[in-house]
Amino acid sequence: MHLFEFIPASQLVEGEPRHRRSIYRSAYLDIRLREESTKGSYDYDLIVIGGGSAGLACAKEAVLNGARVACLDFVKPTPTLGTKWGVGGTCVNVGCIPKKLMHQASLLGEAVHEAAAYGWNVDEKIKPDWHKLVQSVQNHIKSVNWVTRVDLRDKKVEYINGLGSFVDSHTLLAKLKSGERTITAQTFVIAVGGRPRYPDIPGAVEYGITSDDLFSLDREPGKTLVVGAGYIGLECAGFLKGLGYEPTVMVRSIVLRGFDQQMAELVAASMEERGIPFLRKTVPLSVEKQDDGKLLVKYKNVETGEEAEDVYDTVLWAIGRKGLVDDLNLPNAGVTVQKDKIPVDSQEATNVANIYAVGDIIYGKPELTPVAVLAGRLLARRLYGGSTQRMDYKDVATTVFTPLEYACVGLSEEDAVKQFGADEIEVFHGYYKPTEFFIPQKSVRYCYLKAVAERHGDQRVYGLHYIGPVAGEVIQGFAAALKSGLTINTLINTVGIHPTTAEEFTRLAITKRSGLDPTPASCCS
Amino acid sequence: MHLFEFIPASQLVEGEPRHRRSIYRSAYLDIRLREESTKGSYDYDLIVIGGGSAGLACAKEAVLNGARVACLDFVKPTPTLGTKWGVGGTCVNVGCIPKKLMHQASLLGEAVHEAAAYGWNVDEKIKPDWHKLVQSVQNHIKSVNWVTRVDLRDKKVEYINGLGSFVDSHTLLAKLKSGERTITAQTFVIAVGGRPRYPDIPGAVEYGITSDDLFSLDREPGKTLVVGAGYIGLECAGFLKGLGYEPTVMVRSIVLRGFDQQMAELVAASMEERGIPFLRKTVPLSVEKQDDGKLLVKYKNVETGEEAEDVYDTVLWAIGRKGLVDDLNLPNAGVTVQKDKIPVDSQEATNVANIYAVGDIIYGKPELTPVAVLAGRLLARRLYGGSTQRMDYKDVATTVFTPLEYACVGLSEEDAVKQFGADEIEVFHGYYKPTEFFIPQKSVRYCYLKAVAERHGDQRVYGLHYIGPVAGEVIQGFAAALKSGLTINTLINTVGIHPTTAEEFTRLAITKRSGLDPTPASCCS
Repeated sequence: MHLFEFIPASQLVEGEPRHRRSIYRSAYLDIRLREESTKGSYDYDLIVIGGGSAGLACAKEAVLNGARVACLDFVKPTPTLGTKWGVGGTCVNVGCIPKKLMHQASLLGEAVHEAAAYGWNVDEKIKPDWHKLVQSVQNHIKSVNWVTRVDLRDKKVEYINGLGSFVDSHTLLAKLKSGERTITAQTFVIAVGGRPRYPDIPGAVEYGITSDDLFSLDREPGKTLVVGAGYIGLECAGFLKGLGYEPTVMVRSIVLRGFDQQMAELVAASMEERGIPFLRKTVPLSVEKQDDGKLLVKYKNVETGEEAEDVYDTVLWAIGRKGLVDDLNLPNAGVTVQKDKIPVDSQEATNVANIYAVGDIIYGKPELTPVAVLAGRLLARRLYGGSTQRMDYKDVATTVFTPLEYACVGLSEEDAVKQFGADEIEVFHGYYKPTEFFIPQKSVRYCYLKAVAERHGDQRVYGLHYIGPVAGEVIQGFAAALKSGLTINTLINTVGIHPTTAEEFTRLAITKRSGLDPTPASCCS
Repeated sequence: MHLFEFIPASQLVEGEPRHRRSIYRSAYLDIRLREESTKGSYDYDLIVIGGGSAGLACAKEAVLNGARVACLDFVKPTPTLGTKWGVGGTCVNVGCIPKKLMHQASLLGEAVHEAAAYGWNVDEKIKPDWHKLVQSVQNHIKSVNWVTRVDLRDKKVEYINGLGSFVDSHTLLAKLKSGERTITAQTFVIAVGGRPRYPDIPGAVEYGITSDDLFSLDREPGKTLVVGAGYIGLECAGFLKGLGYEPTVMVRSIVLRGFDQQMAELVAASMEERGIPFLRKTVPLSVEKQDDGKLLVKYKNVETGEEAEDVYDTVLWAIGRKGLVDDLNLPNAGVTVQKDKIPVDSQEATNVANIYAVGDIIYGKPELTPVAVLAGRLLARRLYGGSTQRMDYKDVATTVFTPLEYACVGLSEEDAVKQFGADEIEVFHGYYKPTEFFIPQKSVRYCYLKAVAERHGDQRVYGLHYIGPVAGEVIQGFAAALKSGLTINTLINTVGIHPTTAEEFTRLAITKRSGLDPTPASCCS
């Protein structure tokens, strides 16, 4: 993340160069904030609870806008292995960053085989070195932790490594290594995020691990039962398979809940094609440790009631995440909680006037780093920068980093149907064949994309969905296009970049309604 | 390319399902065209000269719209090695497709080294097998040739493997293997494309090769002098280096003429960092074959006049391409030529009423496959489908597939300055560090992007430029955004997809005018 201040064009004074305007604005704010600060007698203008993506972005932006800010961060060790980590939150330590690196490691294993097909004299009998990979990943994380600490110091955010709990709506008790400390602030931002859930079955906590442990696991995962088919479960199963282990995915109900279900099932099928079994309609009953150290998992089919069991080296819970409200002592501050999360209004305000929440802890919004960062930054600007701009949680693009990736922006087909009616939407779709897939004879069976659009009028695009290589890179620009009012007419008249896979969006010609075959015939004409 | 008919939304009859409307429209056209066809007594409604991207797209679309169409295609063997190829034109045979595959082969060589850094126990001492690579690439091309032929047969385009020259504006003499044939048509579309130029120096034609030969070369290229620093020269030098050979790039004046020059120089620097020497301000004087079979190239610096020489295994001319007007006997048809190209109006009409031109042969337009395809298809629809839609040659995105890729859409910084004045544009820029680059310690020095925008008002984006991995995949969506009226405000409020490199566009915060440091400080907050 770039850390230099930027100001939305709408807030700029016309006729002044951007950087000079920002200096003027800072000077004005300093005066205003000094006046305001003397009003109360709090230790800080703002205390941010949580040093993850949302909290850090908010804290830094608040300081840039003249506020005196403290940021608390504390990581409770995981129950099974006692894993903990440094500042930066889920994304840096046990989320996007390590998972992307392990995904990349997995893709590079594939690339070695592809290299052989392209003529490189590489020995295809390759093995991963789990310990070296974990070490490399952890080294990178540590370097990010360090840069984050330096950055906070440079930006004059007071970093407190402590667990905060409310005494009242302006007072926090911070439990530090060195004891307790009571601190006060005019304003609080809760950005504590979440942690993985454990199922309530025997052996779950004693023998199972979660994504909080996986990226620093000190032994090879081996045969792994991944329980849960949300994006975290699928991503973990995907890279474990790519690294040569044997994951199985256990699915209680549906795959990738909240995502377009046609795409979700294609993703699952593409994983099954790679040899990852899916146990459908199945829930775990218990985990026991055998004498040989392996884990015996008993499970049952929720439809047939049939029970079965299997033995694994690792059991990974990926059944969802829980907001970290428990330690906050929210009743003391009067903050309302809903299902482990904190409901906020369109200003990210809780029900208590001086307490806000951003990031994964808020109720009913996408749990994504860039959402957290932008929401945190915009909140700080509204609080201290005179801004009125609110976070727009609509049409947020995201990517599932499965072996064949899936990215999307906007509405799923089923949500579009729900919102506008099936007669009012048109779905353009197509399979495609990435040029690079031919020589290594990679499967193109699940390379598929679709545009969900308005049926009549300008054919405004409601949603874009893409399964294939580098899906996030492909969809990001289209997210900006969607936000700019993309229509089907504009899309199909955008000239493609050849040969890419992203250009397939400009070639979408077949509607689902037509019933025509959406498989491609030829190339380059 | 998908081959099914699509109709721009603007031409659709409201209230009818899309596929049914197209059936009605076809029926209507059949009647209209039968009437028109009987007007003349020509062999065909349309003869398309050239079976490349433009010609094929135009021919197939014309048939779909009811015309009787023949398509001529003929490849003259290269002078040095006698290389020739099948139907499909430059892109399929000696352009985008083989170059992307060789680029991919080169990237996969890099990937093997990266895999080792990520912990795979792969032997990094790898060598490419040039013959296997060429064979794989040529096999893929042959399969595309075959699919193209089948497709033409299915679509009832008469394919004529012959070299066409005009007798008059309605008559063509086709030189076939089996002799000559005279054919007539109401309308002609010239889509003959271009071929690489040779310099006018001793030994150029005898000993040098071009991109027409490289992808089927029956020996390893070895130490290669690439003369010319346009995108073709840089791409060839890039993949040759990646494949372990020793390319040198000879540049007469500037690198990547026509592209943003800051980006062009960054691309060149990134290639130099990888060990590809650039001989600047240098032109070749002669090529001689030594007794040992190697090529002695004498050259001189155009500024100092200093002469020097070196010995190479291969000399590759990449000094530009020439439109194939010579064999067409255009004076017989009265068609005007300008610098080996054919000038056309906004309807792709030449100065002769019934003769059109599309693709690389037209004067002053981007020489790109998707441009050719779309222009060819739109022309056919205007000729036979009642359409009035013209090709928009503005804001066409493109990618240079150098080892670190470069993609852009819209205006270069210098063109924006020229068009609007330096005081009226704002350039947002930044260096960035791809997450995946850390573990293999890949250089991030040239990972850079910028947005050239309106300075005041809505800050409309004029151009986007990106150097980094999978550049084409990154820029394609932004091309659709630009066409949808993207502004800086929309761009920086588009939520990123984390961790990707494409998200860096949403983080652009530093203006060149501010003088602030555009290097990134931290990640994920």
